[in-house]
Amino acid sequence: MKLQLLLTGNELMAGDTIDSNSSMIAQLITEYGWRIDKKVTVGDDLKLLEQQIQHLANDCEVLIINGGLGPTVDDMTSLALAGISGNTLCEHPDALAHLTQWCNHRGFKLNASNLKQTMLPAGSQIIANSRGSAVGIKMLLGNCLILATPGVPSELRAMMNEEIIPLLSSQFPSDYIQTQRLAVFGLGESSIQELVNKKLPNWPNDVELGFRASMPVLEVKLTTRGKDASEKLHVWRQHIIELIGDHLLGDMPLNLAQALIAALNKNGQTVCTAESCTGGNIAAQITSVAGSSHVFPGGIVSYSNELKQNLLAVSEASLATDGAVSATVARQMAEGALKATGANLAIAVTGIAGPEGGSEEKPVGTVWMAWGNKENLRVEKFFLPLERHLFQTLVTALGLDLLRRYTLGIPGLPELMTRRRS
Amino acid sequence: MKLQLLLTGNELMAGDTIDSNSSMIAQLITEYGWRIDKKVTVGDDLKLLEQQIQHLANDCEVLIINGGLGPTVDDMTSLALAGISGNTLCEHPDALAHLTQWCNHRGFKLNASNLKQTMLPAGSQIIANSRGSAVGIKMLLGNCLILATPGVPSELRAMMNEEIIPLLSSQFPSDYIQTQRLAVFGLGESSIQELVNKKLPNWPNDVELGFRASMPVLEVKLTTRGKDASEKLHVWRQHIIELIGDHLLGDMPLNLAQALIAALNKNGQTVCTAESCTGGNIAAQITSVAGSSHVFPGGIVSYSNELKQNLLAVSEASLATDGAVSATVARQMAEGALKATGANLAIAVTGIAGPEGGSEEKPVGTVWMAWGNKENLRVEKFFLPLERHLFQTLVTALGLDLLRRYTLGIPGLPELMTRRRS
Repeated sequence: MKLQLLLTGNELMAGDTIDSNSSMIAQLITEYGWRIDKKVTVGDDLKLLEQQIQHLANDCEVLIINGGLGPTVDDMTSLALAGISGNTLCEHPDALAHLTQWCNHRGFKLNASNLKQTMLPAGSQIIANSRGSAVGIKMLLGNCLILATPGVPSELRAMMNEEIIPLLSSQFPSDYIQTQRLAVFGLGESSIQELVNKKLPNWPNDVELGFRASMPVLEVKLTTRGKDASEKLHVWRQHIIELIGDHLLGDMPLNLAQALIAALNKNGQTVCTAESCTGGNIAAQITSVAGSSHVFPGGIVSYSNELKQNLLAVSEASLATDGAVSATVARQMAEGALKATGANLAIAVTGIAGPEGGSEEKPVGTVWMAWGNKENLRVEKFFLPLERHLFQTLVTALGLDLLRRYTLGIPGLPELMTRRRS
Repeated sequence: MKLQLLLTGNELMAGDTIDSNSSMIAQLITEYGWRIDKKVTVGDDLKLLEQQIQHLANDCEVLIINGGLGPTVDDMTSLALAGISGNTLCEHPDALAHLTQWCNHRGFKLNASNLKQTMLPAGSQIIANSRGSAVGIKMLLGNCLILATPGVPSELRAMMNEEIIPLLSSQFPSDYIQTQRLAVFGLGESSIQELVNKKLPNWPNDVELGFRASMPVLEVKLTTRGKDASEKLHVWRQHIIELIGDHLLGDMPLNLAQALIAALNKNGQTVCTAESCTGGNIAAQITSVAGSSHVFPGGIVSYSNELKQNLLAVSEASLATDGAVSATVARQMAEGALKATGANLAIAVTGIAGPEGGSEEKPVGTVWMAWGNKENLRVEKFFLPLERHLFQTLVTALGLDLLRRYTLGIPGLPELMTRRRS
């Protein structure tokens, strides 16, 4: 199958938006054994859009168009498709039914802008959108199958998975490709590559080893093709899992909160949080997972010293003597949270996220963490001198991983962090 | 100037890398008053690369090529340029001098891979690279000026700023361009477009109105060119600000937490949180802003009913009679948080994020919110039947905006939400 991609949007041409949609489409397409031959991006300019659709459609079997299906005047994919195919725009009954249902479900009234989204080129079909108002458009232009998709990433992803991949699979059987993705935290790409070079010198050429850093989790990807792909992958997956050791969270897609919750469920434990510099981020990550209420009664965001005293029973003396960012206060925060919530395990975090608030003794990036149960609390200091947002993201990730390790009885710290402990 | 962009790299075609280079180039180009007409991306395939260079160069005055200048075999921009122009690849003395100096400076020896980077099409000139080993290539192909640039973002950025922008500025004096970006919450793209159509029928053609939904904030962008750009923008910015009304957060870049904190600082108020279904997300958003400690002592994540009772003094009777997701409990949570933290203002959130936990009476998506000070708490029910992650994101955004409105004394709710109140 020869497949090309056309993206449209002034925000892409002006650089206001970084285009993540095309890499999402490309990943899916690649995973299924096809590939994208060429990708073209143009602004919201009707003439240019028509030219490009015509030009690309002449030269491929499938053209996926992304963007330009919205309700406003700068959305003109439908108009362009009508223009090229010599058809008029008509109100499409399926599109109208979808939009009416979508609005009813949300208690909205259909407005004129919405109605624009029901106007499709005569003779085209809709592609269902389970997440949004804009339906996709499917039509033939000469011998080229045109698939127009919405620009909103969540809608696009759903439409790709639910409609377009199944459609392409039925029409264009692909070389069987197999991929395995592992979620890893705390071991870097270059460390893994070095381990592979040293310990697995016979790594086969036809098993591709790839890495994708999607902060804070690293995705390790094994890809191979052909009839024995499954067996080959199984063997080399095992080898690399041994190398990764306790840094392995599991199979992707998996985030740190999901890995923690799986560990807690397995061991019948519950957890609570006492957060200062992460400001509720650890709790928010945990509760982003459906079903987290079984393992998480709640937590306390004690951003001020007063709240550390009032809600977590941190002693005034410790705050005065050791300061809020100290081993003593981290420990007392964890103890206070265990008592206040009745959870089995706690994580407490107190540090200096910056950019202000650092000192010579405790520079920005200093963080104390305490975690464990009331009989056995571990307390460590880490130093992560990063920009505020990165600091908060990484400390949150570390907190989740330290709890995962504790729950599973893994004594070691993540490799990346042993270098950051002070 | 008609300018086009060609990107090359297998990692871009497979979706392993998200292309941020082209948005960097586009932002710079746009800032200087030019625009990119079309952008094409292809993999590391010599024939395809040659075809595209030829095709694009025929149709523009400047073609910026990005990628394919590295030392490995899959880097073939130089080879393609030689092929099309009918010239041979020769060792270029300036490129050799640059590379020798670059290696000497780092104590490296020139190796065969490096030497590949000195082989440029005969007749071309180098573009200096102050950050890396790969020089850029400048040459004419027919009437088109070709500028080939390296794929490493830091090298590309330096080369654009130090060499390419000055070169283009000297050859192609640009139209002066001006842009204004407004941050808006709670009023949709289609509603704004309709308001403009209805109330500003004389909207001028040369003031471009654009929208970018970066969930949950909507960016409204006004762009115009020419000598009177500033004045024209000033006038139409005022008009659209009047339409947007209290949905305007301010000038971009600005998120909801920043807008809230600005309002709190302005009015000398502090705020606390009592979160159930948002699980710490509101607190995390507030504390993501540097300096938030002045307005935010902390909050409580009361995910379980026990914590609602123990930490927020929600009454057992209310939980039993009205349920955790109710007006009474939302109000008691806010009151409890005000008492526990000493803040002036509170927001409390209790709802059903799903996918489990809904009932006929209280379906997934139901949420009660209470906000205000202890003398005047407002309590409202909203219905947001969305996928869990979107639900949490939108409820968090709504919470931040309700507090902003309260702090500024704005009585109305966001327009989008008045349609969602039940």
